[in-house]
Amino acid sequence: MHPPQHLGQTFAALGDPTRMAIVSRLAAQGDMTVQEIAAPFAMSLPAVSQHLKVLERAGLIARGRDGQRRPCSLRPERLAEATRWLDHTREAWNARFDRLERFLATLETKNDDQDP
Amino acid sequence: MHPPQHLGQTFAALGDPTRMAIVSRLAAQGDMTVQEIAAPFAMSLPAVSQHLKVLERAGLIARGRDGQRRPCSLRPERLAEATRWLDHTREAWNARFDRLERFLATLETKNDDQDP
Repeated sequence: MHPPQHLGQTFAALGDPTRMAIVSRLAAQGDMTVQEIAAPFAMSLPAVSQHLKVLERAGLIARGRDGQRRPCSLRPERLAEATRWLDHTREAWNARFDRLERFLATLETKNDDQDP
Repeated sequence: MHPPQHLGQTFAALGDPTRMAIVSRLAAQGDMTVQEIAAPFAMSLPAVSQHLKVLERAGLIARGRDGQRRPCSLRPERLAEATRWLDHTREAWNARFDRLERFLATLETKNDDQDP
């Protein structure tokens, strides 16, 4: 499978515990303002905004235009793409093992045939 | 879901097109030496080795000790963990939509009751 160009960016954006926590909370609790997102973190608003910019550039969140609020919402499409790539990679891995197993079974049958 | 400590490291390691390609090929083709991994890339061996170190630190690959060969193999456990976190996050998102839908259905029923 040829992965979409931006999939590396999605994984890179998720490659940080704070950004993973933000994505989890937006998924479970719905749209939030930057202030609401920042509340549980011992982190400045600009630091949180920086993380949100990385998530937005990676297409994992969108910023609304609700006056001054600009709520953040999760865009689950990119999560789905990441899951598809991981599933495909694990399926390739499993298929290789299945082929190996069948091959070994064939050898065993041949050995049985040759037994006196 | 509290993600495993190292999951951010897994996503960060996958957040690069070369490393994603290496993981894909190890999944589909099985163990390879550094030379075999490097072959399709327009990249020096040390540059490829650097990527392999990132993947190894993240627990995504293991290096064997087959004499001088030191073949690399994929460790699919970390891919499975990443999938579980993504699945869980998307389920939380979907569950929130289902709750919203049920709530809206309740409002509609109430409105119907009040209709003359």
